[in-house]
Amino acid sequence: MNGQQECKPLDEALAFIKANASFLVVSHVQPDGDAISSTVAVSWLLERLGKNVVLVNESELPSRLQYLYRFDRIHSLKQQKPEASFDAVIAVDCADHRRIGEVASMIPEGCPLLNIDHHPTNDGFGTVNLIRPDAAATVEILYDLIERAGLELDLDCATAIYTGLLTDTGGFRYSNTSPRVMEIAAKLLAIGVSGSDLADHLLEKMTVAKLKLLQMALARLAFSEDLKIGWLYIGKDDLKECGAVPEDLEGIVNYALNVDGVEVGILFKETADGGVKASLRSAGKADVAQIAQVFGGGGHVRASGCRLDGALTEAMSRLVEEVRKALV
Amino acid sequence: MNGQQECKPLDEALAFIKANASFLVVSHVQPDGDAISSTVAVSWLLERLGKNVVLVNESELPSRLQYLYRFDRIHSLKQQKPEASFDAVIAVDCADHRRIGEVASMIPEGCPLLNIDHHPTNDGFGTVNLIRPDAAATVEILYDLIERAGLELDLDCATAIYTGLLTDTGGFRYSNTSPRVMEIAAKLLAIGVSGSDLADHLLEKMTVAKLKLLQMALARLAFSEDLKIGWLYIGKDDLKECGAVPEDLEGIVNYALNVDGVEVGILFKETADGGVKASLRSAGKADVAQIAQVFGGGGHVRASGCRLDGALTEAMSRLVEEVRKALV
Ligand SMILES: [Mn+2]
Ligand SMILES: [Mn+2]
Repeated sequence: MNGQQECKPLDEALAFIKANASFLVVSHVQPDGDAISSTVAVSWLLERLGKNVVLVNESELPSRLQYLYRFDRIHSLKQQKPEASFDAVIAVDCADHRRIGEVASMIPEGCPLLNIDHHPTNDGFGTVNLIRPDAAATVEILYDLIERAGLELDLDCATAIYTGLLTDTGGFRYSNTSPRVMEIAAKLLAIGVSGSDLADHLLEKMTVAKLKLLQMALARLAFSEDLKIGWLYIGKDDLKECGAVPEDLEGIVNYALNVDGVEVGILFKETADGGVKASLRSAGKADVAQIAQVFGGGGHVRASGCRLDGALTEAMSRLVEEVRKALV
Repeated sequence: MNGQQECKPLDEALAFIKANASFLVVSHVQPDGDAISSTVAVSWLLERLGKNVVLVNESELPSRLQYLYRFDRIHSLKQQKPEASFDAVIAVDCADHRRIGEVASMIPEGCPLLNIDHHPTNDGFGTVNLIRPDAAATVEILYDLIERAGLELDLDCATAIYTGLLTDTGGFRYSNTSPRVMEIAAKLLAIGVSGSDLADHLLEKMTVAKLKLLQMALARLAFSEDLKIGWLYIGKDDLKECGAVPEDLEGIVNYALNVDGVEVGILFKETADGGVKASLRSAGKADVAQIAQVFGGGGHVRASGCRLDGALTEAMSRLVEEVRKALV
């Protein structure tokens, strides 16, 4: 991060910030840990530089992140649209303009926008773009930006950056966990971030509702005879019965995938309208994007999704059969 | 790791190695990831220094670690006692001499022993002792030792060290995950270690047998009315029924502990002799060592164990009652 080439986009972003006095900071709809952490880290940076800041997100905010600096200043449009005037917008962790959601309606035509993101699919929708697909998380870019601004991180900002790294790398387990991620994590821990408390709170703990859902799903886990396909299902009233929310479904498909020998794991979810949604995960051999496409869905080689018509049992056997064919 | 003080024990250990030509390397009974990784990392170091090496462990070796360099050269006394002559012994990850187990019978009286370990309780049983309680894992000490020897890590040795760090820090989640751990991890990843594959293989994947056990245990998860105590149990025939081994019980107690609001998680296991073993985990408020002591057990504030007489149901309610009292 010291080469001339890498610094130019950072300097352009800092110039954008210096040229304006007040900012709307927005992250993507249904924000994850990196989106919210990036929002508050940008707020921290702007405040240090004497700027006025308003933080907005379209969706309900994940309450598990409420320990974050300035979390309680983030306006959710689900609560109330804030009255706000600002010179410029900073969008974080948004691959394209649509990811901003309803917040777009707050932004006047032609308002300058700084686009800070790490998604390789980012379409450069900003007036100024700071896009680094090599970054594991948007907070990784913000770490460099803050350093480039000559500011010293405090515990508040360090905790936010650690949070974004932790959530976007699955606790330093995904393949985006680069040497640079670990170096930054080392520096954040040295500042005093309690990495173990954050990991415990964000990655280990679950609500009783989520646990009930997991119990239910696990009890139904089934495998193909050759143990290469594993699947579980959640019926349309199960979330309510467990007191769970849709986010609680996250990660449950991994219990099917992470069994030795399993090549494809599937979570089926009956929808309110009587259809079935399927989330597919591959250990590497099968291209589950291709399988999902058969049913009009899509995604990536290792993670995809599709919708199926008809009753749950029938939909399940249709998709499992398709996976079986793909694994031959 | 550059101070004069820190280097002296490393230099003494290197002098010990240089003074001898052939070595028995031993780690603790029922070896974990750090024990085996340390064994093979020491083997790597000794080989580079032109020494003869024999690697031994009392117990069955965890087959999940068979990708490690020299794994297939580790003799398990459960298989066969090797014929071996050596000048000196290196014990790794052993807090005291008893942790060597039956391998002690291979060591002649008065044979010089280098004791490399990170347990704060290490009693310094070696002729030369390299003990660093600040290290998260014994492999962390070996990283410094190899660096001090002026050797450059290759992928084999880097993979072993990453393995030990990963397993002893619970995937960089425990409080022993220091800045130094993350710095070393960064360097190992830069060498080419596939951190995500290792995390997947060692921390995410499970056998069908372990999954069955988890299903069974989760289906039985119960809570006190105030949701502060969570517990699960495994009957005396359940392991066999699932095709599981005792190690598969590891981590299952966390499903009881890691529910929001739970202060104490307990795993009860019926033993073959008709008694009950309990593993207790605390989120921090309750001292579970003290609770275990009531039943003649012991451990740490946050992790302890004890044995109870009598039938499972009765033993469970006795211990839960004791925990309840401790939480008042
Ligand atoms: Mn992100
Ligand atoms: Mn250890």
